[in-house]
Amino acid sequence: DRCCREVGARERTYTHSQRGRLGETRTNLKIIKKINQAIEKKTPFYSFEYFPPKTPDGLSNLYDRIARMGEWHPIFVDITWGAGGSTAGLSFDIAKTIQNLTGLETMMHLTCLGMGREEMVQVLATTRQKGIQNILALRGDPPRDRSPETVDEFRYAIELVRFIRELHGDFFGICVAAYPEGHSKDNSYEQELSFLKEKVDAGADFIVTQLVFDVDIFLRFLDDCRHVGIDCPILPGLMPIHNYRSFSQISRFAASIPKAIVEQVERLKDDDQSIKDYGVEVLSQMVRRLYDEGVPGVHFYTLNLEQVVTRTLQCLHVNTEKQPRALPWERSASARREGEDVRPIFWSNRPKSYLARTMDWDEFPNGRWGDSRSPAFGEPSDYYLARPQVAPASASHEAELRTEKDVFEIFTRFCLGVVRALPWFEGSLALESDLIRSHLVSLNRHGFLTLNSQPMVNGAPSDDAVFGWGGSGGYVYQKAYVEFFVSGRRIEALLEALKTRPSMTYQAIDAQNHSFTNCSQVNAVTWGVFPGREIIQPTVVDPVSFQVWKDEAFSYWLRPWAEQYPEQSEARMLLQHIHDNYFLVNIVENDFVKGDLWGFCEQLVAQMGASD
Amino acid sequence: DRCCREVGARERTYTHSQRGRLGETRTNLKIIKKINQAIEKKTPFYSFEYFPPKTPDGLSNLYDRIARMGEWHPIFVDITWGAGGSTAGLSFDIAKTIQNLTGLETMMHLTCLGMGREEMVQVLATTRQKGIQNILALRGDPPRDRSPETVDEFRYAIELVRFIRELHGDFFGICVAAYPEGHSKDNSYEQELSFLKEKVDAGADFIVTQLVFDVDIFLRFLDDCRHVGIDCPILPGLMPIHNYRSFSQISRFAASIPKAIVEQVERLKDDDQSIKDYGVEVLSQMVRRLYDEGVPGVHFYTLNLEQVVTRTLQCLHVNTEKQPRALPWERSASARREGEDVRPIFWSNRPKSYLARTMDWDEFPNGRWGDSRSPAFGEPSDYYLARPQVAPASASHEAELRTEKDVFEIFTRFCLGVVRALPWFEGSLALESDLIRSHLVSLNRHGFLTLNSQPMVNGAPSDDAVFGWGGSGGYVYQKAYVEFFVSGRRIEALLEALKTRPSMTYQAIDAQNHSFTNCSQVNAVTWGVFPGREIIQPTVVDPVSFQVWKDEAFSYWLRPWAEQYPEQSEARMLLQHIHDNYFLVNIVENDFVKGDLWGFCEQLVAQMGASD
Repeated sequence: DRCCREVGARERTYTHSQRGRLGETRTNLKIIKKINQAIEKKTPFYSFEYFPPKTPDGLSNLYDRIARMGEWHPIFVDITWGAGGSTAGLSFDIAKTIQNLTGLETMMHLTCLGMGREEMVQVLATTRQKGIQNILALRGDPPRDRSPETVDEFRYAIELVRFIRELHGDFFGICVAAYPEGHSKDNSYEQELSFLKEKVDAGADFIVTQLVFDVDIFLRFLDDCRHVGIDCPILPGLMPIHNYRSFSQISRFAASIPKAIVEQVERLKDDDQSIKDYGVEVLSQMVRRLYDEGVPGVHFYTLNLEQVVTRTLQCLHVNTEKQPRALPWERSASARREGEDVRPIFWSNRPKSYLARTMDWDEFPNGRWGDSRSPAFGEPSDYYLARPQVAPASASHEAELRTEKDVFEIFTRFCLGVVRALPWFEGSLALESDLIRSHLVSLNRHGFLTLNSQPMVNGAPSDDAVFGWGGSGGYVYQKAYVEFFVSGRRIEALLEALKTRPSMTYQAIDAQNHSFTNCSQVNAVTWGVFPGREIIQPTVVDPVSFQVWKDEAFSYWLRPWAEQYPEQSEARMLLQHIHDNYFLVNIVENDFVKGDLWGFCEQLVAQMGASD
Repeated sequence: DRCCREVGARERTYTHSQRGRLGETRTNLKIIKKINQAIEKKTPFYSFEYFPPKTPDGLSNLYDRIARMGEWHPIFVDITWGAGGSTAGLSFDIAKTIQNLTGLETMMHLTCLGMGREEMVQVLATTRQKGIQNILALRGDPPRDRSPETVDEFRYAIELVRFIRELHGDFFGICVAAYPEGHSKDNSYEQELSFLKEKVDAGADFIVTQLVFDVDIFLRFLDDCRHVGIDCPILPGLMPIHNYRSFSQISRFAASIPKAIVEQVERLKDDDQSIKDYGVEVLSQMVRRLYDEGVPGVHFYTLNLEQVVTRTLQCLHVNTEKQPRALPWERSASARREGEDVRPIFWSNRPKSYLARTMDWDEFPNGRWGDSRSPAFGEPSDYYLARPQVAPASASHEAELRTEKDVFEIFTRFCLGVVRALPWFEGSLALESDLIRSHLVSLNRHGFLTLNSQPMVNGAPSDDAVFGWGGSGGYVYQKAYVEFFVSGRRIEALLEALKTRPSMTYQAIDAQNHSFTNCSQVNAVTWGVFPGREIIQPTVVDPVSFQVWKDEAFSYWLRPWAEQYPEQSEARMLLQHIHDNYFLVNIVENDFVKGDLWGFCEQLVAQMGASD
């Protein structure tokens, strides 16, 4: 069996709390657990490796790329670490950010040569504190500026593996590297196999190999590993051929490359597109053969490039179907956010902004939304990830931005999917908006500029295609919700209308903090009831965090939107006027059985839309 | 206005957290807040005063008495404190116990003469730590064994009031005493009024007077208070005439007693019952007159006696109607339990036992039931309050206790209300059991000895007469639940039957800890959804606390039940056999929409009842 001898045998026990988590849908797993699950279900898998880019722009692009590639559901991603920790800070940041902002399980490289024990204690504590739970334990190359007298406190990866296990027990998942064609000139192939066996015995969970271009060599190595009793999963490391330059650089210190490949790349060297096409062909063949031979998964050295890998996955007809949602919002993979199961609704269209704001929290709300947490919100501007995209509306509609009606029209067209982006949305409208889209269009057309909304749901099955989350067997609920900007001129009439609806709670506030509300407590607006579980209420309307969101929401009128226009231009003054004079309003219809928020909205439109 | 000049003006602001509490139904109020609410609603009120009894039996009786009298909903109860703190420990314990075990707001007397400042710092810290939030601040009499050279660090009650406010801000509610006919021979009536004004200005919330037998004197005093600017509530202290002895003792140092009363008591001195009847007559007249004159409430010095006070309240046609429930279980008045809104279902028929076990907890679950809390359960035997009553079944049915069927019959008759008590129940079956009583009878008759159950509720209005809690405007839910003892011979068949019902979760365990379960997590079985609130889930089935409950539940077979019979008697051996061989089982039907727990139970009975 090329898989591994005992599926599950190497899976370590979790000792930290698992309460409050939904059964099958836990995201915060150590990688070995996910691998074993995939092996058990006979689902072939793959992972992506990235390196820290050299520039801030490169980093920003990398995050976008990782997010896009994340939709292919790699079983994990890993982030390299320069020799002697030269990119340590950046590697940490990237791993932490990915782990936090995405549901992707993240592994961080860690090299030990040149590191002191005390320093390593610190690095491991930081890793753990940052919520990173998987480490690729490497020896690493000696740093270039190393003095020859240096006495190494860690000489081999196995010492690092032992050190991690000694200090942190089973907290970390540990991967180690292997060299299918041997590594050092000083040791025989057999000796290296036996060293590898020792590394695994010391506590490594699985193995990733160095570059493999020749599948036969890998398969022989795999058999040899099994023969000496290495029974954990072993993933071959595959490097896509992206272009001539990178291939020829890598091939110099890579292992055996079949002659046919080298020759073909040489032949295509001046044709970038053909090389990429060839790269897809080679990679697809290799992966298909490996899977066919019973290798459960492969590891892609992406070199931070996207195309060849994703085209290969397309060729392999990999299923990118969405998994059932564990919660209405996408869970972060950070170990620190493990207990998190409540968020304020306000950022539901800007989850990255929310994650960026809360990245430095030490605890996350579990079960109840504590007011105490709100002052801990960070500034979104601290994190370039949270920066909204420029509203493309601005370019194509500049000429039209003269009156408030022009702005209404942009929001209306966003609802209809014609305008593709607004700064308040990281993506487009959610699927469940389809049900209320006509109401939203009507609201926006009449100057109620909607940012967020959800329809009422009274006990839908938890595996409902639109509203479901948390797996099957439960029931999910929603209170109808709408949030919009509306002109200050209409606020009084709006408050009057709200008086006729005692089951509704609302908050209204303008940029100068004039505010109106009939509710000062936290209101659960999405919840689910599951067999054998406590009630889960993943989405709340929280008056205190509304204050934080409001500052962010108002700011987008000015930046990025107004700032795109010349000072004193009509468009810029219009957007400044809206910023200064509109209210941000949210309304919850608390009666999720008999309520009628959308009827109320239509009434508002009929009453006020015309009068304006 | 004899009420007070500004209702609400003296109500101090709460600074500690109020989150997670249900609007109108908060139980943990400082007394002044409750008084102001009653004044605002024009609801006359009264309070009861008790003193620490001298014997453990007296104490046990007092608790029962306070609980019974508590059904008359006094606005608060207070506990006296011997001179110089001579009963301090006991007063503390009683106040803490009442505050914890009942929903009654409790005030503790505190005298300062003879106390040092450091000692007082400690006493106040203990008071606060014990969850007592109301203090009657008194000067007190000098302790008897007091040396004449003693220099008093506190000389007057006003110094205590200031000290409390200085150290604890507005945490404590503070009451002070007044003397409608003057107190000291050294001071004029006017001087005393002005001292009283100073006490109030120093931070007292309201006033209770010394014994009043002459309503006119009190009313004059009240007017004089208002005249000098004392505008807080002033409650006249009334002493019921219980019997000749206590009356004549008290009357010696009490204020003016109308001659007619003294003469009438003298006349009836040898007729205890007539004196009591007369006591009810006098007290009713006084209270009625005081209420009529606009006095909002009165304070009864009960002398730990019950009859005259409760008969007086009957005469006054006081409404003892149950308040709408804030939660499915009765809230404790302890400030420390303020956030508590989740409890395991197991003790729902033995709430005092639960409260006694958890009296020493520092934190109470709010929103989520943490496993971590369970090991903190105390032993119920530590608290005599938690001791179950002797099963009266034993006396009347001794002859019948030969076979298990005889035990089944006792449980069945308990369900039917014929047998009045079983050790697993502090009272009789809850109202909502009516709906499933026929199923319970059928279960018990066939050897499924039920301890606890609730029917399924799918979104009843929260003001529903039977299932409602938390006030109006919300929806409440329940998963159907049943818990029973059943013979170990039937366990396999029961588990087989349960396999056919995937929506049910269960736990089964015997006294030797053989156990079966399909659910290791906390399961919410009662929850409510309210406007503008987070979801509340006050009742859960928790596997860890089930272990604690199970020990208690099994123990009752032996003590008090079996132990009532002679050793080697048939009855005792039968009960021991049941203890040793039965399983305690709980079953939750998680599908609260389409589930059918009672159908399943009937099926069990049909299948197994006959086979036995």
